[in-house]
Amino acid sequence: MKRTAFFISDGTGITAETLGQSLLAQFENINFHKLTRPYIDTAEKARAMVQQINAAAEADGVRPIIFDTIVNRDIREVLSHCNGFMVDIFSTFLSPLEQELASHSSYSVGKSHSIAHNPNYMERIDAVHFALDNDDGARTHYYNKADLILVGVSRCGKTPTCLYMAMQYGIRAANYPLTEDDMERLQLPTALKPYKDKLFGLTIDPDRLAAIRHERKPNSRYASYAQCEFEVREVESLFRRENIPFINSTHFSVEEISAKVLVEKGVERRLK
Amino acid sequence: MKRTAFFISDGTGITAETLGQSLLAQFENINFHKLTRPYIDTAEKARAMVQQINAAAEADGVRPIIFDTIVNRDIREVLSHCNGFMVDIFSTFLSPLEQELASHSSYSVGKSHSIAHNPNYMERIDAVHFALDNDDGARTHYYNKADLILVGVSRCGKTPTCLYMAMQYGIRAANYPLTEDDMERLQLPTALKPYKDKLFGLTIDPDRLAAIRHERKPNSRYASYAQCEFEVREVESLFRRENIPFINSTHFSVEEISAKVLVEKGVERRLK
Repeated sequence: MKRTAFFISDGTGITAETLGQSLLAQFENINFHKLTRPYIDTAEKARAMVQQINAAAEADGVRPIIFDTIVNRDIREVLSHCNGFMVDIFSTFLSPLEQELASHSSYSVGKSHSIAHNPNYMERIDAVHFALDNDDGARTHYYNKADLILVGVSRCGKTPTCLYMAMQYGIRAANYPLTEDDMERLQLPTALKPYKDKLFGLTIDPDRLAAIRHERKPNSRYASYAQCEFEVREVESLFRRENIPFINSTHFSVEEISAKVLVEKGVERRLK
Repeated sequence: MKRTAFFISDGTGITAETLGQSLLAQFENINFHKLTRPYIDTAEKARAMVQQINAAAEADGVRPIIFDTIVNRDIREVLSHCNGFMVDIFSTFLSPLEQELASHSSYSVGKSHSIAHNPNYMERIDAVHFALDNDDGARTHYYNKADLILVGVSRCGKTPTCLYMAMQYGIRAANYPLTEDDMERLQLPTALKPYKDKLFGLTIDPDRLAAIRHERKPNSRYASYAQCEFEVREVESLFRRENIPFINSTHFSVEEISAKVLVEKGVERRLK
């Protein structure tokens, strides 16, 4: 069974998309075709949207699910005439919040993902550049400015995790690869020693690591199961000896790894 | 006036955080202290959470706002005894959706940000590596595999935007800097010519560009207002001559720039 879902907003659509995806994920037996439609900020665009929704309803033989965060009442009015099941996110929660906060909503569009509303925005962009500049042990003399330093074997997920924490939360995360040399000596690299409290380890199942490395360098020693198994074993033993907290990234997304790392290290997000 | 807000989840907390931030952004006169608390997945952790909430209520002199996406009823029951104003996201929307979809929610935890639920997860990670490998014109022979190529002067926001689109949406975005040489010849670089339909331009106000470059290379010619103004003028003129769509990034976040680029180019997100 296929069913279309629209995430509609007069802003970026991120809120509608995030909440909509979380809710739809609870219905695993239904195959949703998901479409994000941001910047529906005029009555004309809303009318075109209604046509698109109605066309999907006809094609699917069942009305689409609509998650919307449109703030403007006139535009929402136009949209409400579509042949869709409306999940009206803002109107559901804003009036109880207005009452609780004894304050009126500004009913202004696209606030939460705009620079204007976000005093920490430049911190996030700076953190992205910090992650890039301090990726893969490229530079170690700014570790005093890092919130966190991820360590682990090559291709265990350090870089995407650092970038995610930087982009979403403004966290300055460096990463340092534990390479074969370090492992034979079985010691913590000198560059990391002064920052032991910032270290967090990632590990990974050897077969998964071999598969990832194989895509990068097919049939290399680097990608062989034996090499991957050796590296993972040595690195995990280093983590244990040095009391470095670590998690196995194999079955987790960057979102999950990041959330777990931040809980474990007690680092707070720099939220808007 | 200061008020604490908690984003609480038995998963990553991303949904509670995203929706909570959007809703709170509508109340600009209130200073919220925002805290994300993921993985509250046992009654014991929920009891500790209740204590934290009650302590914040006491410190603030007013009850905190609680956005939660906890799926498990027993854990939610524990949390419901806190001295907070509950915005119960899942329970509000799940039962109307169950009715509309004629299907029962699986009431399973942390679905939407897990790998298991997300068949496109590896595409997102591959896209992040694609953005990194094809950053700043480093490599041009994989442009046939790009969904988009962002072009613009150095430090106008191309790299963070590419990384955002890759991380969130699995979009393969390369970027190519239009440097002084290209500008004097006032031509589209040869490497870009075969991919004109993939190009999107970013521009920026010269004074903002000068400020950003100044942080990188203080008092350089590169960071001078005259140089920035010249480069921006030449590049915008190139965009117009070559009919390359473009936007001014100065007042937009990466989320907003990404949403605008995708609308303009008609590129669909690879959603979960």
